[in-house]
Amino acid sequence: GLRAHLSTLHAPDIADAMEQTQEKESLLIFRLLPKDLAVEVFSHMEPFYQAEFSELIREEELRDLVDELYFDDKIDYLEEIPATLVKKILRNTPENERKLINQFLNYPDYSAGSIMTIEFVDLKKSMTVADAIKRIRRIGTDKETIYTCYVIDNERTLEGLISLKELILTSEDTTIEEIMNADFISVTTHTDQEDVAEKFLKYDLLAMPVVDSENRLVGIITVDDVLDVMEEEATKDFHMMAGMQVSEETYMESSVIQLFKKRFPWLAVLMISATLTSAIMESYEALIAGMAILSANIPMLMGTSGNAGAQASTLMVRSIAVGDVEFKDIFRIIWKEFRVSFLIGCSLAVLNYIRMYFIGGYSPTLSLVVSLTLIITIALAKLIGSTLPMVAKKIGLDPAIMANPMISTILDALVLITYFKISSAFFPLG
Amino acid sequence: GLRAHLSTLHAPDIADAMEQTQEKESLLIFRLLPKDLAVEVFSHMEPFYQAEFSELIREEELRDLVDELYFDDKIDYLEEIPATLVKKILRNTPENERKLINQFLNYPDYSAGSIMTIEFVDLKKSMTVADAIKRIRRIGTDKETIYTCYVIDNERTLEGLISLKELILTSEDTTIEEIMNADFISVTTHTDQEDVAEKFLKYDLLAMPVVDSENRLVGIITVDDVLDVMEEEATKDFHMMAGMQVSEETYMESSVIQLFKKRFPWLAVLMISATLTSAIMESYEALIAGMAILSANIPMLMGTSGNAGAQASTLMVRSIAVGDVEFKDIFRIIWKEFRVSFLIGCSLAVLNYIRMYFIGGYSPTLSLVVSLTLIITIALAKLIGSTLPMVAKKIGLDPAIMANPMISTILDALVLITYFKISSAFFPLG
Ligand SMILES: [Mg+2]
Ligand SMILES: [Mg+2]
Ligand SMILES: [Mg+2]
Ligand SMILES: [Mg+2]
Ligand SMILES: [Mg+2]
Ligand SMILES: [Mg+2]
Ligand SMILES: [Mg+2]
Ligand SMILES: [Mg+2]
Ligand SMILES: [Mg+2]
Ligand SMILES: [Mg+2]
Ligand SMILES: [Mg+2]
Ligand SMILES: [Mg+2]
Ligand SMILES: [Mg+2]
Repeated sequence: GLRAHLSTLHAPDIADAMEQTQEKESLLIFRLLPKDLAVEVFSHMEPFYQAEFSELIREEELRDLVDELYFDDKIDYLEEIPATLVKKILRNTPENERKLINQFLNYPDYSAGSIMTIEFVDLKKSMTVADAIKRIRRIGTDKETIYTCYVIDNERTLEGLISLKELILTSEDTTIEEIMNADFISVTTHTDQEDVAEKFLKYDLLAMPVVDSENRLVGIITVDDVLDVMEEEATKDFHMMAGMQVSEETYMESSVIQLFKKRFPWLAVLMISATLTSAIMESYEALIAGMAILSANIPMLMGTSGNAGAQASTLMVRSIAVGDVEFKDIFRIIWKEFRVSFLIGCSLAVLNYIRMYFIGGYSPTLSLVVSLTLIITIALAKLIGSTLPMVAKKIGLDPAIMANPMISTILDALVLITYFKISSAFFPLG
Repeated sequence: GLRAHLSTLHAPDIADAMEQTQEKESLLIFRLLPKDLAVEVFSHMEPFYQAEFSELIREEELRDLVDELYFDDKIDYLEEIPATLVKKILRNTPENERKLINQFLNYPDYSAGSIMTIEFVDLKKSMTVADAIKRIRRIGTDKETIYTCYVIDNERTLEGLISLKELILTSEDTTIEEIMNADFISVTTHTDQEDVAEKFLKYDLLAMPVVDSENRLVGIITVDDVLDVMEEEATKDFHMMAGMQVSEETYMESSVIQLFKKRFPWLAVLMISATLTSAIMESYEALIAGMAILSANIPMLMGTSGNAGAQASTLMVRSIAVGDVEFKDIFRIIWKEFRVSFLIGCSLAVLNYIRMYFIGGYSPTLSLVVSLTLIITIALAKLIGSTLPMVAKKIGLDPAIMANPMISTILDALVLITYFKISSAFFPLG
């Protein structure tokens, strides 16, 4: 029946199904699951839904469930639910585990500490391969991974790593000390999760040890959680680049007020900053009044330079994020961008001249003014778009804030000044 | 000396060092490396640099090196180098391997076939656990992973997966058939690599089998390569959203001409489309000439609505990319966006009225006109920004093209029309 069918499904799919179904039915499904699978399903639910679901089941049931979660998932869950429920769940938890939970809850968001777990296999370097495999057989079932094992001394200082592959392929009487890898990659609890992900990418890791300031092993990070980190960090950058505050909620689970709060501040700041453009235009009021046709090209000029700036800044923000570009490269970049922008500016200028003079029948002077403005403002757009993210990084800001909205607001002002200066030169008043 | 020092370094770091050093020195470093490490270092070089480096070393040396690469890395390398060099390298390759290489070279870019490799452990379901472990010990050294093994029949049909963890934790005389997982996740050679990555994320996989149309196992994809895919796909989306054509070259290795080609087309298309804004403005030339102060607010209005549109479209493109939002949600989204945009529009309108009327000393009518325009255009921006990506996806386009540049060009025109319509109503000519 249903129970047999459920056991052929994968935990993440059951979690999805439960999230999409009625409360009563999802409870029914959940109660049909074998204990182990139920725990896995729960750990694959969205945090938001985990919190909701917690109110559906009995307290002891919930306590049993949470008890079985891997430690990283347990911490994530406890962060999501109200403090009163945390207290209830931890009521029977032994003092030392409760201390550990508090320690883990205190690691900063987006740190290595916040994504690590404690279910790893520890070995001693005096063991033989046979001893090690015996130990893995004994304690391995509940570990997040047994494919990398951690060699520690009596003070829990991390001395080396050994992969199960090496253990399996090496003769049984070799000691761990002989084959362990002592030049391993590790991070500390406060390392940014982005740096963790970068190391996984670079060194092709399946798991990575996290040590404290005294080099004692406190946890491991597994690659499945690094995939989540990469997705989360890319999303943060996308949002930041569009001038939205970063949050952990998905779109669908965010309320209207939450969305408002994430989007309003930047829009307001940018709108106020754009007042500058009104001031510039007002200072050229006489010119515009005398020649209203001038203003007809402003939206196109601002749009085109904004687009050019967005290209440069996006390229740069992303190149910095993936580690392709560093501050020392800035002059090579400026020089490269200058050449690219000159090529683009000239091509667009020619295209514009054809459109205005040959097709649109505008005066050659006006066509020339607009084309010249294009060349200059595209150079400015590329220059500002590519350097501001680097400068932001240098002064400790996230490069992603120097993206479209910010840069196009700056550019709008520069475009107007350039355009009016050139226009005034070619069309002197009076 | 140097040789001893090198052997304590990680292959990716040696590859980095070689990429940053002079040709002669990098060759020197390379020749000091033990064979295995040399192969690993080579596989961690950027494709661009691999191709360059190939010209530095002797042909036999290169052939030996390429021969030792994992198959996926070999294919990536062969794709990068000129056809004449490919011929030279494959000169002594046996006919059946050459056929396989051609088959792999023909898988489309960004497909599962293009990222899979062939070094996996295959087992038969009649084997016992002891047999399986013996086989892993015998053939495991050169496999990309031994942590997931693939159970196939005599026709190479994939029947199940078995993890090394299960093998290690199960008693030796159990047969593979009893413990293998027959409800496994797999993809076909033509599956998009983004869908592959999504499956790794969802099911927390370390490796995934790739089958052909007859369900025969043709390769496996390992998680280290999926990390690269995720980075690459996020970069593609960032670039597409900024109106740049997607390419595999990094910024630093792209030439000025390549960068020009990636950026010019969209800028040109958008510039030509922006001609529409000139036409709109010209049709209101009399209004502008009579009241030049009107045009002073245009950059701010276009900027603000562009920013609001960018927020909505970025949010939507990213939500679609990570699978948070589907087409069936479109009406819920429109309704949510409507409420958010109303809140934002009204707040910005009040802020603008304060700035214009109370601080700037503008007439109450003009202040009102601008504020009303804000409310309407922000609603339009949010609506268009959030629905166009969904529509793009529905008609088979990549949602990411409906980002900033495209949407702000559309919005610029709508802002002008809205602003002039409202202005004409409040300030009748003559
Ligand atoms: Mg956490
Ligand atoms: Mg960070
Ligand atoms: Mg890698
Ligand atoms: Mg985990
Ligand atoms: Mg997880
Ligand atoms: Mg970041
Ligand atoms: Mg704009
Ligand atoms: Mg490939
Ligand atoms: Mg794709
Ligand atoms: Mg996952
Ligand atoms: Mg590979
Ligand atoms: Mg690789
Ligand atoms: Mg995509």
